[in-house]
Amino acid sequence: MSQHEQQPLDFDVVVVGAGPVGENVADRAHKAGLTVAIVEKHLVGGECSFYACSPSKALLRPIHATRASQRVQGSEGARLDPQGVLARRDAWINRLDDSGQVGWLDHVGITLLRGEGVLTGPRALEVDGRPVTARHAVVLATGTTPTVPPVPGLREAKPWTNREATTSRRIPDRLAVLGGGVVACELAQVYAALGSTVTVVEQAPGLLGRNEEFAGTAVKEALERDGVDVRVGTAAESVSRLGPTGEVTVHLEGGGTVVADELLVAVGRTPATKGLGVESVSGRLTDAGYVSVNARMEVEGVEGDRPWLYAVGDVNGIALLTHMGKYQARACGDLVGARAAGREPDADRTTPWADDLGAPQVVFTDPEVAAAGLTEAEAREHGLRIRVVDLPMDSAAGSGLQAEGYQGQARIVVDEDAGVLVGATFVGQDVAELVHAATVAIVGKVPLATLWHAVPSYPTMSEIWLRLLEEYGL
Amino acid sequence: MSQHEQQPLDFDVVVVGAGPVGENVADRAHKAGLTVAIVEKHLVGGECSFYACSPSKALLRPIHATRASQRVQGSEGARLDPQGVLARRDAWINRLDDSGQVGWLDHVGITLLRGEGVLTGPRALEVDGRPVTARHAVVLATGTTPTVPPVPGLREAKPWTNREATTSRRIPDRLAVLGGGVVACELAQVYAALGSTVTVVEQAPGLLGRNEEFAGTAVKEALERDGVDVRVGTAAESVSRLGPTGEVTVHLEGGGTVVADELLVAVGRTPATKGLGVESVSGRLTDAGYVSVNARMEVEGVEGDRPWLYAVGDVNGIALLTHMGKYQARACGDLVGARAAGREPDADRTTPWADDLGAPQVVFTDPEVAAAGLTEAEAREHGLRIRVVDLPMDSAAGSGLQAEGYQGQARIVVDEDAGVLVGATFVGQDVAELVHAATVAIVGKVPLATLWHAVPSYPTMSEIWLRLLEEYGL
Repeated sequence: MSQHEQQPLDFDVVVVGAGPVGENVADRAHKAGLTVAIVEKHLVGGECSFYACSPSKALLRPIHATRASQRVQGSEGARLDPQGVLARRDAWINRLDDSGQVGWLDHVGITLLRGEGVLTGPRALEVDGRPVTARHAVVLATGTTPTVPPVPGLREAKPWTNREATTSRRIPDRLAVLGGGVVACELAQVYAALGSTVTVVEQAPGLLGRNEEFAGTAVKEALERDGVDVRVGTAAESVSRLGPTGEVTVHLEGGGTVVADELLVAVGRTPATKGLGVESVSGRLTDAGYVSVNARMEVEGVEGDRPWLYAVGDVNGIALLTHMGKYQARACGDLVGARAAGREPDADRTTPWADDLGAPQVVFTDPEVAAAGLTEAEAREHGLRIRVVDLPMDSAAGSGLQAEGYQGQARIVVDEDAGVLVGATFVGQDVAELVHAATVAIVGKVPLATLWHAVPSYPTMSEIWLRLLEEYGL
Repeated sequence: MSQHEQQPLDFDVVVVGAGPVGENVADRAHKAGLTVAIVEKHLVGGECSFYACSPSKALLRPIHATRASQRVQGSEGARLDPQGVLARRDAWINRLDDSGQVGWLDHVGITLLRGEGVLTGPRALEVDGRPVTARHAVVLATGTTPTVPPVPGLREAKPWTNREATTSRRIPDRLAVLGGGVVACELAQVYAALGSTVTVVEQAPGLLGRNEEFAGTAVKEALERDGVDVRVGTAAESVSRLGPTGEVTVHLEGGGTVVADELLVAVGRTPATKGLGVESVSGRLTDAGYVSVNARMEVEGVEGDRPWLYAVGDVNGIALLTHMGKYQARACGDLVGARAAGREPDADRTTPWADDLGAPQVVFTDPEVAAAGLTEAEAREHGLRIRVVDLPMDSAAGSGLQAEGYQGQARIVVDEDAGVLVGATFVGQDVAELVHAATVAIVGKVPLATLWHAVPSYPTMSEIWLRLLEEYGL
């Protein structure tokens, strides 16, 4: 920051929140020639870099690589080294030191304002009480915080959230996990692999409820093979901990208890809008507390002769995924840049319209779950006339070559009226990179009759595409 | 075959060659309701299943999985078990027993005629001298055989071809490889990993000459790290072997020798048209000896009131790749079926037009080379006004998470006038499944401006797509 000390606290653009989403919107606006400040009260790089995607994948990848070796005849002796896994994770999160990211901001010329940003009026904020103004735009990118539900005794039991679970240097003997979504499944698998006795408690009847049901079923079975006790369809009624560091007991609805040394709460996220002052400028929040935005990420309800307040990433609640937030950030940064220059923005480029098609997502469990577009249920809710094609992944020879006894499942969802793909889900070892082809097909609205000519290479696992289209009847 | 013994040797369709390509054309024609015979003189399943793609990938995968484990902190102890690798390969090629494939033919009701097929006239063949007629169509799918160039002493030295190299149960102490294409590179790496001292002799200035130059360079450096002595820009002048099983000496142009226990010749392929009788029905061959076909796989020059002779797969020389041959086979089988039924064939479905866009291909070396569409040089030869974008693979965080110190390179080739992708190449560990997204984009002619909205999931390696498009200027 040193080179900026002499500048007045007035910028073209002020971004609140320096996670990947905030960094991207700041970067695009700065590249458009604007002066940009980014406000961050904790770590530059945000939840994703330090407490979510990055450490989670850093922890999971050695597990995947070890198992991949163990599953192939001719490769032997691979084993997990738990301390090595933790050391790898430490390297990826740089021991919670954000100097690398701060150096990048300095390098490109974006001003970092450390502190808590609060909207105080049109184009006006305070950062830890210090007034800051934005000539053109303020962009909110504060993300979310872990939800701690109002279960009696839960907060007092000092549960882990994703933050503690992704950064712990200690492997608890027993870990209880509340929740059955991505964070719960990934971290349950990590700790089980590292040696913890893990119990998952999920209220819903299955895991990964936003995915196709077969994906959650496959991950549940895999967790159980890993020794995880998965209890679905039940919830915590109360929680108690014996003393400040003693064992935690989770009392389940309808009886039964889970006793553990640590308790991870991973039941959802809460938008980080508290104290942000959105309402003070007439900005609207959704019932769930997210900042309400239109298709161009403009905060709804804000008054003024021209748009100046935007919200991108998790805080707007559209898709709680780093890559979709970054996507919104690129569009928003370009929009802010164009508007500041008095140019008519390119509507296609500055509207993140692919949000509406269903975000791609990879769950890095073993098996991986890689999905894009709509699930069967979502497509039906959209009123589409669809056809679903299901196949085991080993219909493609490439899967069997990847691992002995390869287990997995693939589904495509076809919009029968439009003749295009609207959804795809792949479950299995090493399917993470298979899904981008689906994203391209869905977003590009490539007709199925044309997809038929997109030949997958033999013998890759991607040949499942051929099998799915054959099964569809092409 | 037993259930067909009483049938006369007259079929709707006769397919010559029972590799994957022949199997596919037979299957599609049979599904169209036609009676189909398939002629095979060696193994049903063909070169790909027994002597090429399948055993090669079966041998390479344990190497990849072992190295992937070794390259990730937190995974340790993985090592290659050479006998396990060979046993895995043996299982994949079913010890050269094609009863599984024969059982499939029986099961679906395609008649197998064991023997050598020769065209004798319009819609007429002999199989080992026995007359066979086709009411509607004859489809040639005989593939290729390894080229043994006229180097003095080479043939007498009884060199290995891909057949011996993919099926050997013995690991020679020293292996010399003539050639620098896919087969040469993949098998050089296999034998080096299994313990052979390997020398590669390639006439061209680099390896993998049909790919982008940086791909060949990366594979050459990787082979050298594996201890392979790679000699490019030189050729064998003569070869001699000491006695029937003694050591082989390759004398190089300009001096120098390579001494080895076995010599693998992998310098190209020769179309398997000898004795096939194509000329006897006025069918044309190319200068290189391939069967000349038009866009619908009809053999050029053949007389008759309606088309009856087709050639698909390697034997037509369009793309020497199993998956492209199978693609041609599906189109051809559907075309034959429609014509036999007197229906006007769907021109789009029954023309394998994606052949013209550049076939996707994966080289399963470590690093893998996965490419689709045109190389930079090919695009320029096509007269396209292009722009090339290059990036190291570790521009995407997903690559660094995949392996410590991940090394790799990516390139896209953009047609600046059409605003679409025409080529993509990825080099690195585990890039095989990245290329299908490129194939979909190229074949679907998805505008770059739309590709921008196809968001790759964080933190997958596919995020290189985002980096490439950003670097392009989107």
